[in-house]
Amino acid sequence: MLHDRLAEDLYGAIAAIPLLDPHSHINPLQPASRTLDDILGYHYYTELAHSAGMDQTPLGPEVEPRERVRAILRHMDRFDNTAQYSWFVEIAHEFFGFAGDRVTAGDCDALWDRAAERMAQPDWEDQVLRLSGVEQIFLTNDFDDPLTGFDTKRYVPCLRTDELVFHLHRPEVRQRLAKATGVEVTNPTLLRQAVAALFEHFTGRGAKACAISLPPTFAPVQVDPVSAEAAYKEWVAHGTATAPPNSAQAMVACDVFWTLAEHCRTFKLPFDLMIGVNRRVYWRGVYQGQDLFDQRTSLIQFAELFNSFPEVTFPLSVLSSGQNQELVSYSWIFPNVVTNGHWWYSNIPAYIENDLRARLQAVPKTKQIGYYSDAYKLEFILPKYNMYRRLLACVLADDYVRPGLCSLTQAVDLARLLLRENARHIFNV
Amino acid sequence: MLHDRLAEDLYGAIAAIPLLDPHSHINPLQPASRTLDDILGYHYYTELAHSAGMDQTPLGPEVEPRERVRAILRHMDRFDNTAQYSWFVEIAHEFFGFAGDRVTAGDCDALWDRAAERMAQPDWEDQVLRLSGVEQIFLTNDFDDPLTGFDTKRYVPCLRTDELVFHLHRPEVRQRLAKATGVEVTNPTLLRQAVAALFEHFTGRGAKACAISLPPTFAPVQVDPVSAEAAYKEWVAHGTATAPPNSAQAMVACDVFWTLAEHCRTFKLPFDLMIGVNRRVYWRGVYQGQDLFDQRTSLIQFAELFNSFPEVTFPLSVLSSGQNQELVSYSWIFPNVVTNGHWWYSNIPAYIENDLRARLQAVPKTKQIGYYSDAYKLEFILPKYNMYRRLLACVLADDYVRPGLCSLTQAVDLARLLLRENARHIFNV
Amino acid sequence: MLHDRLAEDLYGAIAAIPLLDPHSHINPLQPASRTLDDILGYHYYTELAHSAGMDQTPLGPEVEPRERVRAILRHMDRFDNTAQYSWFVEIAHEFFGFAGDRVTAGDCDALWDRAAERMAQPDWEDQVLRLSGVEQIFLTNDFDDPLTGFDTKRYVPCLRTDELVFHLHRPEVRQRLAKATGVEVTNPTLLRQAVAALFEHFTGRGAKACAISLPPTFAPVQVDPVSAEAAYKEWVAHGTATAPPNSAQAMVACDVFWTLAEHCRTFKLPFDLMIGVNRRVYWRGVYQGQDLFDQRTSLIQFAELFNSFPEVTFPLSVLSSGQNQELVSYSWIFPNVVTNGHWWYSNIPAYIENDLRARLQAVPKTKQIGYYSDAYKLEFILPKYNMYRRLLACVLADDYVRPGLCSLTQAVDLARLLLRENARHIFNV
Repeated sequence: MLHDRLAEDLYGAIAAIPLLDPHSHINPLQPASRTLDDILGYHYYTELAHSAGMDQTPLGPEVEPRERVRAILRHMDRFDNTAQYSWFVEIAHEFFGFAGDRVTAGDCDALWDRAAERMAQPDWEDQVLRLSGVEQIFLTNDFDDPLTGFDTKRYVPCLRTDELVFHLHRPEVRQRLAKATGVEVTNPTLLRQAVAALFEHFTGRGAKACAISLPPTFAPVQVDPVSAEAAYKEWVAHGTATAPPNSAQAMVACDVFWTLAEHCRTFKLPFDLMIGVNRRVYWRGVYQGQDLFDQRTSLIQFAELFNSFPEVTFPLSVLSSGQNQELVSYSWIFPNVVTNGHWWYSNIPAYIENDLRARLQAVPKTKQIGYYSDAYKLEFILPKYNMYRRLLACVLADDYVRPGLCSLTQAVDLARLLLRENARHIFNV
Repeated sequence: MLHDRLAEDLYGAIAAIPLLDPHSHINPLQPASRTLDDILGYHYYTELAHSAGMDQTPLGPEVEPRERVRAILRHMDRFDNTAQYSWFVEIAHEFFGFAGDRVTAGDCDALWDRAAERMAQPDWEDQVLRLSGVEQIFLTNDFDDPLTGFDTKRYVPCLRTDELVFHLHRPEVRQRLAKATGVEVTNPTLLRQAVAALFEHFTGRGAKACAISLPPTFAPVQVDPVSAEAAYKEWVAHGTATAPPNSAQAMVACDVFWTLAEHCRTFKLPFDLMIGVNRRVYWRGVYQGQDLFDQRTSLIQFAELFNSFPEVTFPLSVLSSGQNQELVSYSWIFPNVVTNGHWWYSNIPAYIENDLRARLQAVPKTKQIGYYSDAYKLEFILPKYNMYRRLLACVLADDYVRPGLCSLTQAVDLARLLLRENARHIFNV
Repeated sequence: MLHDRLAEDLYGAIAAIPLLDPHSHINPLQPASRTLDDILGYHYYTELAHSAGMDQTPLGPEVEPRERVRAILRHMDRFDNTAQYSWFVEIAHEFFGFAGDRVTAGDCDALWDRAAERMAQPDWEDQVLRLSGVEQIFLTNDFDDPLTGFDTKRYVPCLRTDELVFHLHRPEVRQRLAKATGVEVTNPTLLRQAVAALFEHFTGRGAKACAISLPPTFAPVQVDPVSAEAAYKEWVAHGTATAPPNSAQAMVACDVFWTLAEHCRTFKLPFDLMIGVNRRVYWRGVYQGQDLFDQRTSLIQFAELFNSFPEVTFPLSVLSSGQNQELVSYSWIFPNVVTNGHWWYSNIPAYIENDLRARLQAVPKTKQIGYYSDAYKLEFILPKYNMYRRLLACVLADDYVRPGLCSLTQAVDLARLLLRENARHIFNV
């Protein structure tokens, strides 16, 4: 696919590096797709089809999955220019033997049947992993996930904490927390007990990271004990019928967040921060297709955190190239800040290329986690990583090998750090 | 001009696509230039000459136009590196048969005479349109424009509404509105009557869009009727001697804006939003050379609007690449948000190229209006579109055809959507 | 180093242009390095080594310099991907005859000895200047610098004013000011007397610029005399034990800043503004490795300043590409705003290239100061300028010569403006 011989050679060597995928939403009990609906049900396709004019009827639970796929394919010629479309074509080529140049609604039945046949093979999961060259995949686990029934060496647990920080006022979240930890949280001390119990459980089951996504306005600070105590009181007294007052809620959110960082320190877990997403901006949108970012955010909001926890490594994901320039500078200066992947709206070639070049030129190479799939199904690891590896090959060719800054072998060694070794070291796997 | 054979071939094919120019400031009663002064009086040249050291004396109304042109040409060697300069050279080549590489003050008289001769030809307007390959051009019409005396199929009216939203407190604006609609606006109900009358008039004369430019801080919300009523009252009671209190004025501005969106829904007109310009920042500057942007703005300010009017299409123009990344994501998610051109300070190759690549990779191809000229005189359509088409050809060559993502024919089809078909569809022409 | 023949030819011609380096931190009494410790003590190396895992022990004053160098070299293979590393390799090649591809800890002793030998040569300073092709270098002088003991034609003084604007409340700063000027500043009038004395002293010793770095929130306004008087009073009454109240301090800072601008006007000095740095963000960091930027800043904060001082030229340095886009537009519109170099976190190829392209395409060529070294030691001028010149050669080749917009000679003339002539003209040297 690359028209530059040097980049092609680099790509070949890079593609042979076994992957550690340090962030995904894979369900380890059902990691691979069972039908084409699992592939095209990925929010990238439902949201693009909807954005391009598809109403949401085909997405209803009562719709026959094959018909849902047909509806999405029927709209695909409106977004066959996108990177997301090219992922799908690559999946069709690599996994289902599709030979055409473009996938259209006319291909629906043949592709559905072919996919169903392949996916029904008992070793489909292993086939996909082998073809994708991936050895370990990090998960995104709810805090009350039992973490049982799967190989935690292959599917590495990761404690996702958005609900604890932002939704602890919801009765069902507190009930789930009580059930998971045996602690009814009504004050800062009990919160710490509950969080400790979660970290015990997760690290006991092989968890290697704590993670959270944050809105652009979030600026964590340490809450003093007296204020924290008062905020929890107000919060508890408020009952559960409606959301508590904003000020108490914000203070509790800060306290929970800070407590998580403290436990990352104690339990020696990196704390993945995914910074900048506003939830439900397009509230009429499809499932998982409602969130957007606000470019007006700054890592300065995290300065106190980074200074307070020098022992905790913070792999940072950001959503814009403006924010990436801050990230480059922060990870160049702060020993405990590392760059992490190309997240969501930044995960298209135009932004990856610029963001990647800047990171390579300014951040110590040992502090860069190159990429993660963010996938919900195993089949997406291959096309997403291929997109990244092609860009990486081109950047290494143009910025390093051709100007004589390093040899081809050294460039591949650099790629190995980004794709595997740094993540192994940082997450201690 | 392109040194890449594939890009050159693409450019050739793309340049043959008839254009629909969806935004300009052309005066349909005098669309082409009459003298070289009309060309070099464009604010891009007066502001660059002034910025590069020319005082404003040559711009005075008493100065002989030919001498004004000479003064600007005399300063041009200070900005002959700019994209704007290259537009002028291309105009001189294409329209006036200029054969040199650079235009200097020494060329003034010859060029003036040659231009005058050409422009005096009775079919000059048609010649320019034919040479430029443009079929339809959208206008920017004051709300009280009679819209008579021209072919509204060729020059498509567009209701520009900045004055209604931001300057309705000015007596002369209210008088003009009263004259145009027969309604003296003193409350929200009368405002709606006046706006309805404007939409009747405009759509009756073939208008295909409503448009407005907005300062970076503007964040429209729906004003409740009681507050709106009170704001108009305060506003009217205040009299006309000075500007009304900010709070009342801001509320009226929101109410007018929201009313325009409601009428776009009723009359099925897209609402062009041009986001981010602060007016009169350099208040000593030349005419139309005083405005600048503030990068700190976000499309989140329009989330309520986009959610409230799913039936209205919003073609969005932005002023920075940071804002373009938001625009890419917003038009990827919101069905009613589409990308629109490369506006003003973003309209130079370095920014167009990056912004264009990102849009192509992430926004459904049917939701992208590639370019508009923003021209005040017809002669600028050609060089501005050529700049864009060259970049488009290079991006299509590098990102689509060469990596095998599409054929040359498919790439040209994609260009056709951007240059013509999407605008026809979105604006219903 | 460039694989493109045209760019290589351009680079050769550009590299022959004698340089005027319009901003450095060179100590004119000790301009060149004396040991390799002077080279690797540059904060870029200490902060990158620390960021990559080196504790700060080797940086202590009691550590043997050669051992400090060894410690940094030992960590260098963790950041040998960075632009900063490549500067060091180029220094080793060009100045110390190092022949290897990579510098490792194993090279420490040989390199130390070789460097010591070269640096001990009595004409080392002249050798470095000659090899670097630099004729004049601007300094960064404390306001109470006697400016004696060096050739002010070669090392051009520049009045640095951060302390006056932001730290005048500190007793030691006021004492130094009193000592330097004979004026004890307790009110706006005395401040003006003191500032006038500084400008007299500096311009009398050949100073060609006034300069300051500013935090992202700083928005200068003219303080009315009554408020200024009151603020100074509160400020003086407060004593010196602790910082004065924020409001008084902010008002005094504005008044001092405005006074500096007034004296720039009177003394015809450009006022270099370096915009956007927050100090001590990573307060545990190494010396000079603690500062970071906040992307959320806008040049609109300086609109009143630019409008109020049309006679003063403001060379502007910014820290992000987002801010660069504003800078491009501001220097395109405001006659007294010019672009200045690629500062600090923006000074890596990925950002220089994009920022440079945009400036070349939109800002009059006479208003661009291409680059400055920001160096603390002479040896860094060569590799930093070479990085810039390579990028400049590539951009001129791709954006100007190859598309036929100008000849190779014209492109080199353009480079000469950026590297030498514009600075000579703007700073009147």
